[in-house]
Amino acid sequence: MADPQPVVPSRIPRSGRKPGDRRVTVDRPEARFFRYGEQGTIVAKVAAIEPDSRAGRLGFGARRVLFGRVLSTHEEMEQRLPKWKALPIFSSDVMSSVAYASEASMFTLAAAGSVAYGLLMPISILIVALLILVTFSYRQTIRAYPNGGGSYIVARANLGVLPGLIAAASLLVDYVLTVAVSVSSGVYNLSAAVPILDEFKLEVPLIVICILLVMTVNLRGLKESGSLFAAPTYIFLGSMLLVIGIGVVRTALGNAPVAPPTTPFPAALEGMSLLLVMRAFADGCSAMTGTEAVANGVPAFKPPEWKNAQMTMVIMSALLGSMFLGMSWLVGVTGAVPSATGDSILSQIGAAVYDGRTPLYYILMFSTMGVLILAAQTSFADFPRLASILAKDGFFPRQFAFRGERLAFSSGIVALAIVSIVLVVAFGGDVNRLIPLYAIGVFTSFTLSQSGMVRHWWTERGPGWRRSAVINGVGAMVTAVVVVIFAIAKFALGAWIVLIIVPVMVVGMLLIGREYRSAQVELHVRPESVIGPPSRGQRVIVPMQDMRRDAIQAIKLGLTMSKSVVAVHVTDDLHAAEQFRARFEEQVRGVDLVIVESPYREFVRPLIRYLEFTAEKDPSVVTIVLIPERIIKHWWERFLYNQSAYRLRDALTGHPGIIVADVPFRRPR
Amino acid sequence: MADPQPVVPSRIPRSGRKPGDRRVTVDRPEARFFRYGEQGTIVAKVAAIEPDSRAGRLGFGARRVLFGRVLSTHEEMEQRLPKWKALPIFSSDVMSSVAYASEASMFTLAAAGSVAYGLLMPISILIVALLILVTFSYRQTIRAYPNGGGSYIVARANLGVLPGLIAAASLLVDYVLTVAVSVSSGVYNLSAAVPILDEFKLEVPLIVICILLVMTVNLRGLKESGSLFAAPTYIFLGSMLLVIGIGVVRTALGNAPVAPPTTPFPAALEGMSLLLVMRAFADGCSAMTGTEAVANGVPAFKPPEWKNAQMTMVIMSALLGSMFLGMSWLVGVTGAVPSATGDSILSQIGAAVYDGRTPLYYILMFSTMGVLILAAQTSFADFPRLASILAKDGFFPRQFAFRGERLAFSSGIVALAIVSIVLVVAFGGDVNRLIPLYAIGVFTSFTLSQSGMVRHWWTERGPGWRRSAVINGVGAMVTAVVVVIFAIAKFALGAWIVLIIVPVMVVGMLLIGREYRSAQVELHVRPESVIGPPSRGQRVIVPMQDMRRDAIQAIKLGLTMSKSVVAVHVTDDLHAAEQFRARFEEQVRGVDLVIVESPYREFVRPLIRYLEFTAEKDPSVVTIVLIPERIIKHWWERFLYNQSAYRLRDALTGHPGIIVADVPFRRPR
Repeated sequence: MADPQPVVPSRIPRSGRKPGDRRVTVDRPEARFFRYGEQGTIVAKVAAIEPDSRAGRLGFGARRVLFGRVLSTHEEMEQRLPKWKALPIFSSDVMSSVAYASEASMFTLAAAGSVAYGLLMPISILIVALLILVTFSYRQTIRAYPNGGGSYIVARANLGVLPGLIAAASLLVDYVLTVAVSVSSGVYNLSAAVPILDEFKLEVPLIVICILLVMTVNLRGLKESGSLFAAPTYIFLGSMLLVIGIGVVRTALGNAPVAPPTTPFPAALEGMSLLLVMRAFADGCSAMTGTEAVANGVPAFKPPEWKNAQMTMVIMSALLGSMFLGMSWLVGVTGAVPSATGDSILSQIGAAVYDGRTPLYYILMFSTMGVLILAAQTSFADFPRLASILAKDGFFPRQFAFRGERLAFSSGIVALAIVSIVLVVAFGGDVNRLIPLYAIGVFTSFTLSQSGMVRHWWTERGPGWRRSAVINGVGAMVTAVVVVIFAIAKFALGAWIVLIIVPVMVVGMLLIGREYRSAQVELHVRPESVIGPPSRGQRVIVPMQDMRRDAIQAIKLGLTMSKSVVAVHVTDDLHAAEQFRARFEEQVRGVDLVIVESPYREFVRPLIRYLEFTAEKDPSVVTIVLIPERIIKHWWERFLYNQSAYRLRDALTGHPGIIVADVPFRRPR
Repeated sequence: MADPQPVVPSRIPRSGRKPGDRRVTVDRPEARFFRYGEQGTIVAKVAAIEPDSRAGRLGFGARRVLFGRVLSTHEEMEQRLPKWKALPIFSSDVMSSVAYASEASMFTLAAAGSVAYGLLMPISILIVALLILVTFSYRQTIRAYPNGGGSYIVARANLGVLPGLIAAASLLVDYVLTVAVSVSSGVYNLSAAVPILDEFKLEVPLIVICILLVMTVNLRGLKESGSLFAAPTYIFLGSMLLVIGIGVVRTALGNAPVAPPTTPFPAALEGMSLLLVMRAFADGCSAMTGTEAVANGVPAFKPPEWKNAQMTMVIMSALLGSMFLGMSWLVGVTGAVPSATGDSILSQIGAAVYDGRTPLYYILMFSTMGVLILAAQTSFADFPRLASILAKDGFFPRQFAFRGERLAFSSGIVALAIVSIVLVVAFGGDVNRLIPLYAIGVFTSFTLSQSGMVRHWWTERGPGWRRSAVINGVGAMVTAVVVVIFAIAKFALGAWIVLIIVPVMVVGMLLIGREYRSAQVELHVRPESVIGPPSRGQRVIVPMQDMRRDAIQAIKLGLTMSKSVVAVHVTDDLHAAEQFRARFEEQVRGVDLVIVESPYREFVRPLIRYLEFTAEKDPSVVTIVLIPERIIKHWWERFLYNQSAYRLRDALTGHPGIIVADVPFRRPR
């Protein structure tokens, strides 16, 4: 049926016209643009979405080069993630934390003197325990919500809209911070190795470029991100496991690696305190964002989705746990300490294990930088997805729910990139000040999510619900304690800002929700109403300031709608109006002309009064006002033509008994 | 016929409805809003232009308090100016120049030593001679162009569009400068007398307030400006004539007034030169703007307009000439010299004639300040009028041609105030730097106007045309020489800026003119074409994304236009589309539904392709696309709803065989 047809150079496709074919429902669409689908529908081909204009084509072509061909909705399944691609996408944030978490804890502990470094191992064990608990809690959540079980969904379903939005807002803030902080720290690590970057102050531009790169790759689709970002992540993973493995073996063989001597970082001594230990703990566990991202991203996995997601999460936690403990253990063995010369703990350990700066050492260091930059990937995987879920529920602008040309949630990806770039530029790349804000959101959402799950099990009471409820209950309590610890430890350092931003965002989302609901109410069609042929008589009125083609077009249209068409001419110059009337009567047949003199030279308002009056006069007849409007081509033409069409339309729309239609005119092309 | 009716509190007027009255042409409009006019028209009463909304009413009421009641076009004649009001309006600029012109010349001459002051009288005589020449030339122009004979009109009619626009642009620039410079110098004179103004840096705010005051008075109408500004102008006139009169009488009686001793202004000696004399001459004759204003403003006079305008101009010139010569003569008699202490020449003469700072002296000084501020009035009288003439000819945005609520050209008045305020604020009130730019425009336009008149007489060759042509010819030559003198004397001081601004304005006006002409061509209706009942069949297509009231309204409208109405639903979710189809078929009767699947998730472009194809398929049938559009209430809602209605409308308007109509929807009020 859809016979292939040569590409026609003319802008408008030639059609396979048949003489006498007057059926209106088109059942033979142009083969270049459409084909037949199932169930009696027609299906648009790619050609149907290609733009016409030269600029449009250029943009379309450029996007194809940058992002690849347009993907059909039906190809969604092929874009799903296998576990080996899902792991780097969702774990990049977690992995990267290994590179700095121990060091951050030690910097904090340094304040209590080097003896406090002995606390590193216990704190690490505590963090890994927390990780295991969170992992088990989320495994359950994924099982219970196989279509995506992020905190927002779980909290909303079980606790209500407000907790749901609080979880969502906390996470969104956190994702933005993750991008800004992780890419910045990666680039600053690099600039410590490549001094020319610092010399020419290229860090901020480079951060922006890195964010744009990650954005571009994500706009190509999650699957491609997985392919591209797998290599650096797995190299880092391998390097880390190798360092730990060699370290263990060397220690077992009695040749324990020893860190090269360094000047210890001179810390302001403040003595051991609970607050200090809490801060060290908080510093250490600030990167569990990946867990949440996997839970939200279940639908991105290949089927069986929930099983693959569970498995990915367990692998991720196991890797993180072993690397974290291994690192902390190696710190103790090698005697690495925070250095005043900027030599990082990881660098000291690497040099110790590999006996100096060997090629393997450099692989370790550069893959670490790569992973720090890629940590942003987890945010890019989950922020757009969370935004799309919020948009579908009407709490976020609708376009965040649409999948772009490559089936990615493009609006969310671009929004995340823009906001984090603005943040980086506003802080001039000095994002250390943002770190205290960071991670409090994730744990808030953990708590809300786990509490929601407890409620869920309590309501469902399926087999084994008690055990599940206990796991999630403990998870909720522990993460709640962590939130309190974070809040106490970091409030003064800036965490209070989150207490302002999150409520503002929640209120914003509630307002958006209200707006969408009110639009829905306004546009609601009762299911029992039946729309049939017109039952009331109608008259058409065309405001007409001059004998112009836009007005003539509106009059012609009016003549197809009613026998009673009236042109209304408002004027302050009766002499000119009479000349107009003479011309009108000669050129326009079957249309009455009413001249309204407006001696106060205001044209729109008397016209509105006249139309209101006409509509009121005979409510059994619908008054249709056809407003002629010439389309302007450039914004500056607004200053040359007064926008009375717009004012008329605005004043008359929604008036009982009046239907307004704007009839735009443009010279035929 | 228009029976008086009590004011109805409801927003929409109750009408005198008659049962069975189904005539569509309304011939019994609401008496509160309309009455019958002549020639079968209806006439809007003031009530018809009063706004509905609370904010609108408040604004309307505030404007009534500030500007007075709304004036009808028919009251225009009552707003005409008698000569005694026209004189202060048009002469304020000229009069004020007496207060500073002699002093400005003397400051320049001072550079050549005090002996050069002897040149003051010859220069003054030269200036007065120029004034007489210009007056005579313009008397002729007014006679020849009784509907307004400003430089633009005369140059355009006789020399062409470009010379006309050059004259217009030069004048517009000059008017803006006049307002900024004159009000500023008035206020700085005042602040010299009232030191508290300078102490608290109140000059710039005071300048802005004065400009806004003159603007407000002008928005009330020219006649009211005349009434209000007559008193200070006539007091100044009286004071000046009194000073000169007493001075003459005292000198005749042998008791010549002598200026109090002062420290002469220490001038940088540069020796006598032609350039110096030229500069002194230019300084002295920088205020003939009034002549042009009278010529443009002829239609503002009471009939016989041209006679009254001529008479006003002659009186003005006579007064200016005698005051100017009188002042220069008194300078010589009293020995007043530019002072280092800031005591102005006028102040020295006043003190000399009145024997010290008597009450009459203070009247002279304060009325001088008042007149300096009022000098802006001449610009406010002519700038808006010139702009309205340009707008009528299509070289200025159209709204400048409309008379406001008080029959004044409100847009021009407000524009002049805004631009001059911006200038004052940008220069921080230090407008001395603007003075060199000043007056070159007036003389350029004089030259163009006089040259145009020569051409006019040459073409007309009426009785006495030779004499007239000689007068205007001499006028043209002399003013051309003055322009050259100005340009040479002041080029380096900044007059070159005018050489940039004027061409830019001319190009801008030409572009505006082109835009208006192209719109006219686009909308031109051939006079021989006759519009009758519809000749082609038509189908209606309604894009419909959901079962919503806006789409239902469009479908209902479509059903009144054609038996063939098709709703088109573009979707990427066939499952949802089938649900939609089921609901549609149940609720909407007599309308076909076409489902277009767009697997690439772009909705607008496939719809456009489909509509293009439908229109192409059967050119004998007109395709009417009714686009439903919910009207948004706030600007920020743009971010919540995508503007596909707008994109559709833009893509389809002007397409052969397709008529687009936007059907806005708002919940009935």
